[in-house]
Amino acid sequence: MSEFEKTPLNKVIRGSKRATYDKAQINGILDSHFICYVPYIHGNTSIVIPTAYGRKGNQILVHGSNKNRMLLSLLDQDLASLTVSHLDGLVLARSVFHHSVNYRSVTVFGKAHLIEDRNEKMEALEIITENIIPGRWGEARIPSEKELNGTLVVAIDIDEASAKIRDVGANDEVADHDLDVWAGVLEIDTLPGKIVRNTDCKPGVPTPESVKNFNIQNHSTQSES
Amino acid sequence: MSEFEKTPLNKVIRGSKRATYDKAQINGILDSHFICYVPYIHGNTSIVIPTAYGRKGNQILVHGSNKNRMLLSLLDQDLASLTVSHLDGLVLARSVFHHSVNYRSVTVFGKAHLIEDRNEKMEALEIITENIIPGRWGEARIPSEKELNGTLVVAIDIDEASAKIRDVGANDEVADHDLDVWAGVLEIDTLPGKIVRNTDCKPGVPTPESVKNFNIQNHSTQSES
Repeated sequence: MSEFEKTPLNKVIRGSKRATYDKAQINGILDSHFICYVPYIHGNTSIVIPTAYGRKGNQILVHGSNKNRMLLSLLDQDLASLTVSHLDGLVLARSVFHHSVNYRSVTVFGKAHLIEDRNEKMEALEIITENIIPGRWGEARIPSEKELNGTLVVAIDIDEASAKIRDVGANDEVADHDLDVWAGVLEIDTLPGKIVRNTDCKPGVPTPESVKNFNIQNHSTQSES
Repeated sequence: MSEFEKTPLNKVIRGSKRATYDKAQINGILDSHFICYVPYIHGNTSIVIPTAYGRKGNQILVHGSNKNRMLLSLLDQDLASLTVSHLDGLVLARSVFHHSVNYRSVTVFGKAHLIEDRNEKMEALEIITENIIPGRWGEARIPSEKELNGTLVVAIDIDEASAKIRDVGANDEVADHDLDVWAGVLEIDTLPGKIVRNTDCKPGVPTPESVKNFNIQNHSTQSES
C-alpha cells in the first residue's frame, strides 16, 4: 500500500488541501530530519519533548536514559504520537490574515515498544546516529555493554500517519491584490555552521568525513503561487 | 521574583545541571523564536502541533481558526504546556554514548484562556506577527472585523517554566581521551535564505524593510568544554 488509510486519528481537517497520506512523501520528510517532538500524557496535561530519532521501516526509533520519563510514559500509553516538522520559510501576504509559513510536517501514530534485545538495541542506536550524521557510527567508539544497559530504546510503530506541506507563495484575497504591499516568501535555511574542535581533542586527529560531508538543508524546492 | 519556583511539574530531573529557572534567561529563549510546539490530550493519546506565537508579559499568545482542534482542546484542559526549542549544534564525542546536541529549550505550564475582547485580539495578533517578523504589522493590511471574528486567539499563562541549555563541547570519559577520534561541535545555523517575490505582486512595490532586516540566528555563543 502506497498510502496511509485516512482514519479519524490521522485525517487532516484544517487545511486539508495541503494534506498528503503518501508513504513515500511521508518517509521522505521523516528521513530528512533527525529531531522529532514527542508528546506524552502527564497528570492532567501533556508535555512535549524534542528528541533525536531514526526510522527503520515502519518504526521510529528513539532513545534515552533508563529513567527518561517521556519514554516510560509512552510505553504506558495505549497509543503514542510524534511530529516532525521542517520550517521552510515565512509567507508574507498583503494582509496580515493570510500570512503563513511554508513547512513540511508529519504526524505519526502508533504503539510504543521497548526494545530489549541487545543486538536490536545496538542496531537502533546505529540507525539513530546515522540519521543524525551519516558516517559517524563508523568513526566513534560504539556503545559498551554497560552503556547499552543504561540506555532505553523505544520503537514507535508508524501505524497511521499524515503530512501537511505548504510550499507556495502568498495567497491573498483578490480585493487586496492592488494594495501597495509586498507579497512573497522569505525562505529560511538550516545549514551546517562553524566546526568547533574540542580543546581536549588529540592533536593530529583530522576533522572527520562525517563532519565535512554533513548537509542539512531543510527546505524543499519552492514554487510561487 | 527573578526565578520560577521549582515544582513537581517544572523541575528538571534528567540533566539537571543544564537546567535554569531564571526568568530573564527563559524569556530570552522565548523571545528569540517564533514557533512553539503545543501538545494536547486527544482520546487515549496526545498530539503535538507546531504553531506561531508571541509573548506578552507572562503569557504566550497563539492563534488559529475558530475550529482549530488543538486550541479548543487546550481551552478544555485544566492545564496547558508548550515547548520552544532552538537546535544549536551537533555534539560529536569520541564515544557514540556521549554524542549529544547543543540546544536551548523552554517548557511552559499554565492555564489557557480564550481572548474575546476585540482590541485584545487585535493586540495579540500584532504581538504574534511582530514576534515572527518585526515591522511587518505596519506594512501589511491589518485584520478586518470579519477576519478577527474568524480567528481564535488563546493566551497561555506562564505560571511555571524551566529551561534546559547545552552549549559546550563534547564531554567524553577520560578513558576515551586517547582514542584517535575527533571530538567537537558542528554548529547548526538557521538563517534567512532566498527572497521569492510573488509573481502577482504589484510592480514597483519594493522589498520591504521587514524582509531586508529579518534576522534569525538560532545559536548562542558557544564555549568549549
